[in-house]
Amino acid sequence: MTRDLQPLFAPGSVAVVGASADPRKWGNWLASRALRGEHRRAVHLVNHRGGEVLGRETHRSLLELEAPVDLVLITVPEAALESTVDDALTAGARALVVISAGTEGSGRDIALGAKVRDAGAALVGPNCLGIFDAQSELELASNDLPAGTVAMISQSGNLALEVSMLAREAGLGFSRFVSLGNQADLTTAELIDAMTAHELTQAIALYVEDFRDGREFGRAAARARAAGKPVVLLTVSGHEAAARAIRSHTGALASDEAAIEAACRAAAIERVSSPRQLIDVIQGLIRCVPPRGQRVAIMGDGGGHGGIAASLVAKAGLQVPELSPPTVARLREQLPPSAACSNPVDLAGGGEADIRNFERVAHTLLECGDVDAVVLTGYFGGYGEYAEVFADPEMATGAALAELTAAAGRPLLVQTMYASSPPADALRRGGVPVFRAVEHAVDALSRLAAQAERDPFEVPVLPDPAAPVGDHDYEAARALLAAGGVPFVAQRTISGAAAAQAAAAEIGYPVALKALGAVHKSDAGGVRLGLTDAGAVLAAYEDIEAQLHPSSFSVEAMAPLDRGVELLIGARWDARFGPVALVGLGGVYAEVLHDVAVALAPVTPAHAAAMLRSLRAFPLLDGARGRPALDVAAAADALAALSVLAAAHPEIGELEVNPLLVLPDGALGLDARIVLRHPAD
Amino acid sequence: MTRDLQPLFAPGSVAVVGASADPRKWGNWLASRALRGEHRRAVHLVNHRGGEVLGRETHRSLLELEAPVDLVLITVPEAALESTVDDALTAGARALVVISAGTEGSGRDIALGAKVRDAGAALVGPNCLGIFDAQSELELASNDLPAGTVAMISQSGNLALEVSMLAREAGLGFSRFVSLGNQADLTTAELIDAMTAHELTQAIALYVEDFRDGREFGRAAARARAAGKPVVLLTVSGHEAAARAIRSHTGALASDEAAIEAACRAAAIERVSSPRQLIDVIQGLIRCVPPRGQRVAIMGDGGGHGGIAASLVAKAGLQVPELSPPTVARLREQLPPSAACSNPVDLAGGGEADIRNFERVAHTLLECGDVDAVVLTGYFGGYGEYAEVFADPEMATGAALAELTAAAGRPLLVQTMYASSPPADALRRGGVPVFRAVEHAVDALSRLAAQAERDPFEVPVLPDPAAPVGDHDYEAARALLAAGGVPFVAQRTISGAAAAQAAAAEIGYPVALKALGAVHKSDAGGVRLGLTDAGAVLAAYEDIEAQLHPSSFSVEAMAPLDRGVELLIGARWDARFGPVALVGLGGVYAEVLHDVAVALAPVTPAHAAAMLRSLRAFPLLDGARGRPALDVAAAADALAALSVLAAAHPEIGELEVNPLLVLPDGALGLDARIVLRHPAD
Repeated sequence: MTRDLQPLFAPGSVAVVGASADPRKWGNWLASRALRGEHRRAVHLVNHRGGEVLGRETHRSLLELEAPVDLVLITVPEAALESTVDDALTAGARALVVISAGTEGSGRDIALGAKVRDAGAALVGPNCLGIFDAQSELELASNDLPAGTVAMISQSGNLALEVSMLAREAGLGFSRFVSLGNQADLTTAELIDAMTAHELTQAIALYVEDFRDGREFGRAAARARAAGKPVVLLTVSGHEAAARAIRSHTGALASDEAAIEAACRAAAIERVSSPRQLIDVIQGLIRCVPPRGQRVAIMGDGGGHGGIAASLVAKAGLQVPELSPPTVARLREQLPPSAACSNPVDLAGGGEADIRNFERVAHTLLECGDVDAVVLTGYFGGYGEYAEVFADPEMATGAALAELTAAAGRPLLVQTMYASSPPADALRRGGVPVFRAVEHAVDALSRLAAQAERDPFEVPVLPDPAAPVGDHDYEAARALLAAGGVPFVAQRTISGAAAAQAAAAEIGYPVALKALGAVHKSDAGGVRLGLTDAGAVLAAYEDIEAQLHPSSFSVEAMAPLDRGVELLIGARWDARFGPVALVGLGGVYAEVLHDVAVALAPVTPAHAAAMLRSLRAFPLLDGARGRPALDVAAAADALAALSVLAAAHPEIGELEVNPLLVLPDGALGLDARIVLRHPAD
Repeated sequence: MTRDLQPLFAPGSVAVVGASADPRKWGNWLASRALRGEHRRAVHLVNHRGGEVLGRETHRSLLELEAPVDLVLITVPEAALESTVDDALTAGARALVVISAGTEGSGRDIALGAKVRDAGAALVGPNCLGIFDAQSELELASNDLPAGTVAMISQSGNLALEVSMLAREAGLGFSRFVSLGNQADLTTAELIDAMTAHELTQAIALYVEDFRDGREFGRAAARARAAGKPVVLLTVSGHEAAARAIRSHTGALASDEAAIEAACRAAAIERVSSPRQLIDVIQGLIRCVPPRGQRVAIMGDGGGHGGIAASLVAKAGLQVPELSPPTVARLREQLPPSAACSNPVDLAGGGEADIRNFERVAHTLLECGDVDAVVLTGYFGGYGEYAEVFADPEMATGAALAELTAAAGRPLLVQTMYASSPPADALRRGGVPVFRAVEHAVDALSRLAAQAERDPFEVPVLPDPAAPVGDHDYEAARALLAAGGVPFVAQRTISGAAAAQAAAAEIGYPVALKALGAVHKSDAGGVRLGLTDAGAVLAAYEDIEAQLHPSSFSVEAMAPLDRGVELLIGARWDARFGPVALVGLGGVYAEVLHDVAVALAPVTPAHAAAMLRSLRAFPLLDGARGRPALDVAAAADALAALSVLAAAHPEIGELEVNPLLVLPDGALGLDARIVLRHPAD
């Protein structure tokens, strides 16, 4: 199943078609970097006009080459692209990297990809920026890239360049880089698998707009994560303008925001929103062991830095606990009297007095057992600026801090205003992440801490499709869901006032009467609650009939609304990621308060319960302020049952129970809805 | 009232006491920088051992000086501090800057401040890092600071240094800098006024832990803002650990988070949470005209950068609208066919093709009228790296972009991965802010846009205190609030079942029965709602009596709960900022959902209505999804009335109506509470 991508990342020979002597042209930038690998492999330059490029005689065509070539890099005008691809396959190429653009949106991409794949080769691009492999010294990109241990797969060339510059500043670099372009052949999922198998790679950074088969993408990411390689994803959100940016860029469909979030949760992908955040989070993930708990000690060479860091750590939901008396006593021995030995610890001149105090204090905090992680913030790395005499001891302290952190098995994260100083580099070389801004250090730490607490979910497999639903009205929705295991109140569909009264008598008073047919029934006045006798049923029936002329009515047992809390449970079919389950507060609250949990469907009852617990409003179910605790397990069962149905019915675009009334004993669906999927989705 | 701070910021002569020849000592760093101003003023170095320091003969004492000295900078051991202050005042000093620490928390600070003030002089510190004035070339700080137009007042020296470094990177610097230290004499408020009056200053940056008189602080900030000088505040939040950092640092009290937020809203202070954010927000405020609306155009040299920026702009609540057909047509003329001419605009190679395309596209977007602001994101500044031939045109384009932005009267904000490049500097010199990270550019833009929409509130004046309340039980709270104009349901306080039944008959059924005495009555089962007749009252009475033995009972008219929404309205007395009013959803929702609006009390009904509108849950009051619109004006009146009472009763620590039931016609208090202020608050 998995293709051999050795010819792509470690080719025995390379040809650059479109190599140019003009320093303003891509063909020049790419050829000059390709030639840097000449000691590792043959590098052929091809230019249809022939002549000399970068001191080498060029070939006029790939067909002039004497031996088969492994990898062909193509940067030619659009009109020449297809014949060049044909030449490359004829010349024996097993990997093609196509820089040339212009084929998108016309179906030509698909044809090109199929042709290359059918020939047993692999294609990156078209419309890409190139590839890079640090281990095989393969540089087929327009820009210089730093070598390192982060594999980057990017659908935008310029964003990858920004990431590479930020990585370099952080003392990181790329193990491999692939510019995806239009994904005519190789997909993100296949490339993630290639990075997972690549020994040098420690983490995988992604910029993806078009996820193609979103579940396969998620599974590849989950495999990487299981292999100990965290996956960090930068993508655009589902906002309208961001989607316009995507459409015009690669012709891809924007995946809905909730579906992306659900996939990231399922596959333990770290989602970020900017290149800067991507590198800062990766820095934390690569360089730190995850903390075993939420307790953070802060040390600063100044009360201001400590206070700001403490504010940010607390705001991130982590703890900044008081230190135990023995720890405080130990710090008092180590620091001058002006120092603050609570948490945050303020060295308060202890750094100028003796730079090795950083080492002593960090050691005390990392080993005391009072905390799970330490943040150092402020001036470290800058003492050498005050006086030459501080410089060497500060370098030694940087190295020592890194060593004692590695020994402690707890993470130390450093922010300093001297993030580019030699002592900061000494920390990074020793495996301690160093950040320019304290809020970015805290963000990385909170990601690390959340990882330790994350429930291990996986990308669920879709069941075989069930027989498609026939009707999709209220009754059909109710019937489908009830058969799937979602409990509902007793109900009869009737026409005529007498039938309404008979149904009410059979069900037992009080009852609710609903007009059928309209989707938002309650908005239109088509729902009457708490009817206590036959007279009330008649009056309500006649009133609704006169106002709305509904096709039929539903008579339902009145649920004990005041004993429970109303939730909304539902699922939506996403074009890329398939069915996505969601739960939030019901009624008007869900829309007003935007408090919703999502997951790829189907979910298990245990996963559904975790979704419920993740809601801000969960305390309402859990007995807040003396209220009775409600039957969370029943609500989770209903959500799981709904998600299984949604996963088995690809013809359903939206499936919803709103409200689901959660009671102290059980849960009851009070309304149900099916919206069929639009054929284009 | 306002003191003359000329001797502090532009002294005719300066003495440095504690000047040292040892390059590891503060007395050395400070003296060497003081001497840089020798061409502007006499600089005397004082060292009690005498001898030569930095090539100058020192005086052994201030008393040796022949003429009076304007400003004395003191960096001596704690034991010598007080005598040195005496000597300085004897030597005629009108301003003192005290670096020395050790006097905090003992009352000695207060005595020192009083002594200096009584002598007609002004004191900065003790325990500070010095001061700086770019215009008068006064450098009395331990580090080199960049000159510019931002006045910085900081209670932490190292944080101010970090800000100075970030400012320098952003092409900014300090007009004045004051390290506050312990604020024994000069307060933040006085210094803000001095910065407001300082012509060179364009914006005021604050790091403050201890606000002293918070209302006076707020008024000074509001005055600065009214004078066109934005105030940006970095402070620690009210979290417990941050408060510990403060206590141990300066002995100050942490002001409560909500009170700080309320003060910032009242005084139009921009609150930030890190040094990095402080400078990025200031960069936006100084360099941009505020946008007149929320519509943003994005231009990027790559679809990825445009998409990421669009995601962030939309997430910040701003709009990324489609461009009008004439604008799109104009962009199509200017850009190559591969470019995306919607919003975001993707130059897609248009930059390499002709760097002046940046200028043309920016001009089109800034002048088209479709948008209120433009964000440029990506690679600008880096084209010169590809080829020398791009370098000069790129510089010219940077200057031209700045010019056309100034002419357009709309803001352009730039993010580039080449933020330190010469073209980026050209943009900054021309008044265009340039950011390293796109999320920081978007943050600055959203601050600018919010400013344009902000309601002009002011720091309210406290009324004269009313006669203190006698009792503070439920009845007293109800009586106070009702007299102040908060409407309540009909009620009688009674003892005995017969009296309960009589009161219920008088009020009219249905009624509620409440046990009095316990604070959280509903948690303990002491509240029974919806009692429809005398029998129900008797049963409820006997049940509560048996369980809780309350001192007395309250019989109240049953409010129509199902017709309204419950709010919580209240006020809390903050030690620094005085009474703070707040409103949120009532019942369990306020605590669970953390959806609360705050303001300095008293508030007007109009301000109270604005607070209500700012709640996430406001649509619940405003007729969401076909519900009836509720009487927001009545709720605002009740909140305003409560806030006026809180402001007039400094003996009350907390005053609360929870719930306040907002109905389609009016609002009704259903419960009330007074907590007297703790004497230490």
